[in-house]
Amino acid sequence: MEKYVIGVDFGTLSGRSVIVNVSTGEEKAVAVLDYPHGVMDEKLPDGTPLGVDWALQHPDDYLEVFRKTIPEVMSLSGVSPSQVIGLGIDFTACTMLPVKKDGTPLCKTEKFRREPNAWIKLWKHHAAQDHANRLNAIAEERGEKWLARYGGKISSEWLVPKIWQVLEESPEVYDAADRFIEAADWVIWQLTGIEMRNSCTAGYKGLWHKHNGYPSGDFYAALDQRMRNLVDDKLSRDIYPVGTRAGSITEESAKLTGLLPGTAVAVANVDAHVSMPAVGITSEGKMLMIMGTSTCHMLLGTEEKTVPGMCGVVEDGIIAGYFGYEAGQSCVGDHFQWFAENCTPAEYMKEAEERGLDIHQLLTEKAEGLKVGESGLIALDWWNGNRSVLVDVDLTGLLVGATLLTRPEEIYRALIEATAFGTREIIDTFSDNGVPVKELYAAGGIAEKNPFIMQIYADVTNREIRISGSPQAPALGSAMFGAVAAGSQAGGYDNIVEAARAMGKLKDIVYRPVKENVEVYERLFAEYRTLHDYFGRGTNNVMKRLKEIKKSVKR
Amino acid sequence: MEKYVIGVDFGTLSGRSVIVNVSTGEEKAVAVLDYPHGVMDEKLPDGTPLGVDWALQHPDDYLEVFRKTIPEVMSLSGVSPSQVIGLGIDFTACTMLPVKKDGTPLCKTEKFRREPNAWIKLWKHHAAQDHANRLNAIAEERGEKWLARYGGKISSEWLVPKIWQVLEESPEVYDAADRFIEAADWVIWQLTGIEMRNSCTAGYKGLWHKHNGYPSGDFYAALDQRMRNLVDDKLSRDIYPVGTRAGSITEESAKLTGLLPGTAVAVANVDAHVSMPAVGITSEGKMLMIMGTSTCHMLLGTEEKTVPGMCGVVEDGIIAGYFGYEAGQSCVGDHFQWFAENCTPAEYMKEAEERGLDIHQLLTEKAEGLKVGESGLIALDWWNGNRSVLVDVDLTGLLVGATLLTRPEEIYRALIEATAFGTREIIDTFSDNGVPVKELYAAGGIAEKNPFIMQIYADVTNREIRISGSPQAPALGSAMFGAVAAGSQAGGYDNIVEAARAMGKLKDIVYRPVKENVEVYERLFAEYRTLHDYFGRGTNNVMKRLKEIKKSVKR
Repeated sequence: MEKYVIGVDFGTLSGRSVIVNVSTGEEKAVAVLDYPHGVMDEKLPDGTPLGVDWALQHPDDYLEVFRKTIPEVMSLSGVSPSQVIGLGIDFTACTMLPVKKDGTPLCKTEKFRREPNAWIKLWKHHAAQDHANRLNAIAEERGEKWLARYGGKISSEWLVPKIWQVLEESPEVYDAADRFIEAADWVIWQLTGIEMRNSCTAGYKGLWHKHNGYPSGDFYAALDQRMRNLVDDKLSRDIYPVGTRAGSITEESAKLTGLLPGTAVAVANVDAHVSMPAVGITSEGKMLMIMGTSTCHMLLGTEEKTVPGMCGVVEDGIIAGYFGYEAGQSCVGDHFQWFAENCTPAEYMKEAEERGLDIHQLLTEKAEGLKVGESGLIALDWWNGNRSVLVDVDLTGLLVGATLLTRPEEIYRALIEATAFGTREIIDTFSDNGVPVKELYAAGGIAEKNPFIMQIYADVTNREIRISGSPQAPALGSAMFGAVAAGSQAGGYDNIVEAARAMGKLKDIVYRPVKENVEVYERLFAEYRTLHDYFGRGTNNVMKRLKEIKKSVKR
Repeated sequence: MEKYVIGVDFGTLSGRSVIVNVSTGEEKAVAVLDYPHGVMDEKLPDGTPLGVDWALQHPDDYLEVFRKTIPEVMSLSGVSPSQVIGLGIDFTACTMLPVKKDGTPLCKTEKFRREPNAWIKLWKHHAAQDHANRLNAIAEERGEKWLARYGGKISSEWLVPKIWQVLEESPEVYDAADRFIEAADWVIWQLTGIEMRNSCTAGYKGLWHKHNGYPSGDFYAALDQRMRNLVDDKLSRDIYPVGTRAGSITEESAKLTGLLPGTAVAVANVDAHVSMPAVGITSEGKMLMIMGTSTCHMLLGTEEKTVPGMCGVVEDGIIAGYFGYEAGQSCVGDHFQWFAENCTPAEYMKEAEERGLDIHQLLTEKAEGLKVGESGLIALDWWNGNRSVLVDVDLTGLLVGATLLTRPEEIYRALIEATAFGTREIIDTFSDNGVPVKELYAAGGIAEKNPFIMQIYADVTNREIRISGSPQAPALGSAMFGAVAAGSQAGGYDNIVEAARAMGKLKDIVYRPVKENVEVYERLFAEYRTLHDYFGRGTNNVMKRLKEIKKSVKR
């Protein structure tokens, strides 16, 4: 009888399950659920207003993903629960929440349900920027060595700034929180009944290191005396490598999911990281770009190098035996979507409607007709800050070169090119710092659906690009980790390299750089880099000052 | 019996007459005629195709304006021709044509009617840019002192580049032309039968100076040997101050217009310049902004100063006894229109339609709801290059500060603010160079219709702004010069200062700077200026390089 594994991918707006054949990697069925509460960035469910840059989620939405999508893939595939040997999940990160000892989210208690700081802070909650800034200054002043592992800067999206925000703004929530935990680990806890934290989020988002552990109590105390014992009081020093079996489906979670009690469950993982084995990458020199609303860049190396502006390097963080490097761009698909929603004229919407096209299809069609460099436009892709290599959420978007003859599709194309230049900057920075990037792989919605964008990336980076064979690489990767959690005796695999060999997939298509385009893009990239450094490295901090003005007048 | 004067304003697309009470300034009637041939930028009336950047007009259209609109205002107002004591006109400039000795336009002769260079080159004919570039290089190399009076650069829109283009491209037209003349002076010639050239176009567009006359024959010869005697052969050294009586309505032009033979006619004038007395400005320190698709800035000073990037300074060019300064912005209303056409989402168009609003009204309503600085955006208003103070058509637009939450109305407002910052830069440059600007006045479509924009200008410039009392300031100003041409003995005035005192008009409304707004705008303007200098003064010539790339790939 064929064996199956289930992977559940928790994204920003929805969760999806996929059921996969363990031997062949064939995906038998997929089911998606949009989170009922989506991203809460203006108010809580009861109407309590949120501040600028907040982004929260609702814990019930995650459980709803299990309750709806697992039975759905079972039913669609016709697979029997007894054939399912394991389950893995991946999550956005750092998406974190304060909980009680028994795992109850504080936002679900009567006492705290109106308190924004008791809710789940989504990865893109940016209201802890001030805390991140102070943390970075203190860490630098103290000469904290771990800082280099994170490109010299901690993001406001990560665990400690978010916890510090809770403490400063709502000390009663901080006190009431027995644990601060990644939502990734929390959902596993809900399935297995056991708190088992994974090495990937702990390493990339929680400052944990395989050999050195966490920063010292003195460091946390330097942020705030009350945080000296944060790790022992509210986090955990027990961190489990990805692929470890976290436990099994309990009686209760069997009812929730329809799976059999005892089914193996892997420790949690992160969406981007889990995609590496899904495209078959298990060795160095191959960068995977997971391209959706934002882009994550994943890369394996054989040594621990310091790369400025990377998001992090974690030993065994992606694949055991390698140093897993991560970098990222905060705004890719989001960028194009912003443009489509805010800057597309009515006549284009009408044309798209009449021709039965999505507005992005129409804009792409028009943008495709332009020669490289023809628009005279260049943009800096910082509409949502810059994650790598500048690590600065206070940077903002820039467009230069507009004239009275500039057309919407020219701006649209310039925004696409800007994100490609951003990726080029990341690749160059890795290569310049001893972590070579020889080949590119891409996964995610954009890689899957948009040959136009992928060709631009090939031309801008002057590298061949291969595309994930699965449209849901994270879910597939999670399923593979589920197979590793189950182990070979149960019909799974003993390590992720074996799982990747059997279940990893690429499409036949390869995007190859076109010489004439590469040449023009070289000139445009030189301009991009000049602007990037001028606005991004402190020569002119106009973007930050404008944000300061914005904040001061909004009060 | 009340006395009246007629002012005729020749614009880019239409001509309009207004009949005005000499004692009170009351405008009794207005009549407008759209030029039957409009702007010819693709072909001549017979189908002969035109090149890129050409813009021509038809001389018959101007006479048609006299023939239609003067009888119409007479009839509408019920004024008798015997009550009309004078007539003045203003025109776009430099709008020029080659004519025979008797005033016949070469384009009206059988020999040249198919030759584009024989036609009237409209002010915005830009096909002589190459000639302007070469002229500027030669003038600078020769150390021509007059260059400083024009901010250091001659525009391709002016007389000599346009004549040089005729010579190089159609030497037979150049040879056949007994005169090259401003259309402004040509229409006066048609009314009076005498060629009388005005000091305003000669000074601002024709390089003439009250004391020094024209550039030397050596200079013209340095452009082309055949042009050595251009001034004596085809222009004129007889230049008459604005307000001079050019002559009288002839028997023939009496038939054309319905006015009585002998009615006084003033020498021609320019639309922007003639608007100064229309709002009552006859002394220094008061800047008039004529705000439409582009903006002209007019200012009187008591000394001839060199102001970098101004369009020109001409003694007696606006008001006798003062130095008239001109500066300008190439893209104001055009800017907002570009945005409305290219970047306004369908939902906004729909809302505007449902509520019966113009899209600009809707965008204004939304933009008005924003606090100063709230958007975090700054733009450089160079979508159509920069006329003052950088005098560089190769500069392009810039927007900085966009985020994923940026809304269309925020960009719209940022573009408006950018034009206000551009005006502020002009004001500061004048003030810094010894020509103080104490008060602001505004005329034109934007001043007339858009309180939101005017308040932003008041806040950004930190100056009170008064608004023209007449919606057709140029025509009113022209009528006032008609009253001066008639003189006090005929019931008019002996000089424009007296005429302005009696007939000049302002609305009751005064836009006053709001302290809180001024403070925030000071901070934003500091950012604007840094970007202005970085991109505009050569630190980073990315805009020019992008234009180069654009040109090279478009070929």
